[in-house]
Amino acid sequence: MADKTPKSSRNGAGDPIDFGGPVCPVPLQDYPNVILGHGGGGKLSAELVEHVFLPAFKNDHLDVLRDSAVIQLTGQRLAMSTDSYVVRPLFFPGGSIGDLAINGTVNDLAMSGAKPLYLSAAFIIEEGFPIAELKRIADAMGAAARHAGVTVITGDTKVVEQGHGDGCYINTAGVGVVPDGIDIAPNNARPGDVVIVSGTLGDHGMAIMSVREGLEFDAKIQSDSAPLADMVAAITEVCPDVHVLRDPTRGGLAASLNEIAASSDCGIVIEETRLPIHPIVQSACEILGFDPLLVANEGKLVCMVPAAFAGAVLNAIQADKHGSNAAIIGHVVAEHPGVVVAKTVIGASRVVVTAIGEQLPRIC
Amino acid sequence: MADKTPKSSRNGAGDPIDFGGPVCPVPLQDYPNVILGHGGGGKLSAELVEHVFLPAFKNDHLDVLRDSAVIQLTGQRLAMSTDSYVVRPLFFPGGSIGDLAINGTVNDLAMSGAKPLYLSAAFIIEEGFPIAELKRIADAMGAAARHAGVTVITGDTKVVEQGHGDGCYINTAGVGVVPDGIDIAPNNARPGDVVIVSGTLGDHGMAIMSVREGLEFDAKIQSDSAPLADMVAAITEVCPDVHVLRDPTRGGLAASLNEIAASSDCGIVIEETRLPIHPIVQSACEILGFDPLLVANEGKLVCMVPAAFAGAVLNAIQADKHGSNAAIIGHVVAEHPGVVVAKTVIGASRVVVTAIGEQLPRIC
Repeated sequence: MADKTPKSSRNGAGDPIDFGGPVCPVPLQDYPNVILGHGGGGKLSAELVEHVFLPAFKNDHLDVLRDSAVIQLTGQRLAMSTDSYVVRPLFFPGGSIGDLAINGTVNDLAMSGAKPLYLSAAFIIEEGFPIAELKRIADAMGAAARHAGVTVITGDTKVVEQGHGDGCYINTAGVGVVPDGIDIAPNNARPGDVVIVSGTLGDHGMAIMSVREGLEFDAKIQSDSAPLADMVAAITEVCPDVHVLRDPTRGGLAASLNEIAASSDCGIVIEETRLPIHPIVQSACEILGFDPLLVANEGKLVCMVPAAFAGAVLNAIQADKHGSNAAIIGHVVAEHPGVVVAKTVIGASRVVVTAIGEQLPRIC
Repeated sequence: MADKTPKSSRNGAGDPIDFGGPVCPVPLQDYPNVILGHGGGGKLSAELVEHVFLPAFKNDHLDVLRDSAVIQLTGQRLAMSTDSYVVRPLFFPGGSIGDLAINGTVNDLAMSGAKPLYLSAAFIIEEGFPIAELKRIADAMGAAARHAGVTVITGDTKVVEQGHGDGCYINTAGVGVVPDGIDIAPNNARPGDVVIVSGTLGDHGMAIMSVREGLEFDAKIQSDSAPLADMVAAITEVCPDVHVLRDPTRGGLAASLNEIAASSDCGIVIEETRLPIHPIVQSACEILGFDPLLVANEGKLVCMVPAAFAGAVLNAIQADKHGSNAAIIGHVVAEHPGVVVAKTVIGASRVVVTAIGEQLPRIC
């Protein structure tokens, strides 16, 4: 895996292009206060984690780049993950904050290869929030948990005064067991690996944005919120040696691929013509000026697998009910480590960069 | 455990007093919207859980009365717990939201007899919050985690717009392992058990309130925020057959004792003269009109142990650095099941009831 020189010196004078790479151009000290972008899943989020949280919690298990942490507990590997959900609006085409709160944490666990088992659920409710709506949310969570095969075993409720919340925020944390023989991590990508996405990109983000912006299309854009643990089990069955799994949520596929490229010290090349994007989502992105690669998904994964297994993995994903539009979109290369390149329709190449801050606030 | 008749018919015409019991007199349907009291840890909170969350998440593990859930995982019992922290102000004498977020979840795990091991940490930050303050909070969490012997292994950050948060809310979830032979649960109290508290009552709640109200005393009231896992290990070492452990946080000792009495179907009698209460806290309660039994603690536990072990357990607690003011305060009785009675200084008896709603909003 070659180049271990510092990233800043990697693209020196001898390189054909200065790719810029994944280093944040906006140092944290330039921000005395938190801005929305610090929660966007892009470079500002990474800065906050690197300079505030990692030094405070320093330990071997905490890894900013993983969707979940994996620990050894009484002879078994346990995965643990947490996410808070602050999506606005609380209900949207294809789902609600309740679905997201279950599926999001289930998927974070699944991305380490774990079988998700048990979840906690904690609510921060704004005074005055209708109890009927809270019940709708809780019922959606219950249904999503049953659908995903996980159990909510513990919870908490806090209420804050009006003007200090926004209806309902939810946190879920989850644990699952990682089967023996599975070693999936964002730094495992290898040159030659094939890159597969499990379906259309940007559906969740554009579903939220089209509601917020009041856009009308012939058909409503639906969020793709869905649990992916069964899909992951099917993938690892045909290819126990999956290298990387990732669910491209905040920051979209661009953020996931850049993180994988940086931590694996490889380059990634994707072909724009192969990206599965729903035509309505494509239209909405054009109208609103978004790049679908930067838009959040809530029921999709991207994986890197050895080329010999690509066909089998693609078939396994397409056989899953949430994977019918899966596609091979590119491959991992030894060149331009840390950098993601897209081949465009006209055959040119462009660098796919991570958003610096917040393209779509409160998308999940 | 004796009386299994419905609670509503328990205190009929033949009883000397109508104790009222733990049934909420304010049915949920009378509240179309969430009020602050629904987050107070009292009867309204219980109503919300019973009518909204339990039906949605229905399963054998979810138990409203436990501080943490205990599950069987690969031959080992795992405890899991979660809490969100919305305390105001974020920094107060004796601690900060950062300490609370670690110690609170550590203690919830410890109350099932578990050794707390791994925590998640999730932040909902309001746009504009100073990064320097966030760093102070994170550093406090790191120090508290090291002090408690737990590791923060995974996290999440969300940012919400100004006017939709209050600086910083934190959720932590945690897992720990329950040693073999330990069976601690709120429904395990038995007539004859001795009731012990580990120190002075009401310190945390009155520390927060005295800051909010700007009260000046000769000495500042300090929050008791502290991790109790070592104390629990010392207790279970001298008395593996501990029946009940509980940390009396929101709702104070009154809420904990009432929950234990109701779920164990026993009565509890405590003696007011034996309650350890710091004189300054007593004064503050008198000035502000609070009952110290209803005020939150963040570094205290109450336990029910067989009488034969009471002395050994008391000694073990007093030997712990957070237990020097521990005291035996009462005992469990077969009479008046579900009801907590306090013997007053003048020898009279009063029923100790749980607060209906919120005595001290956003205390943790």
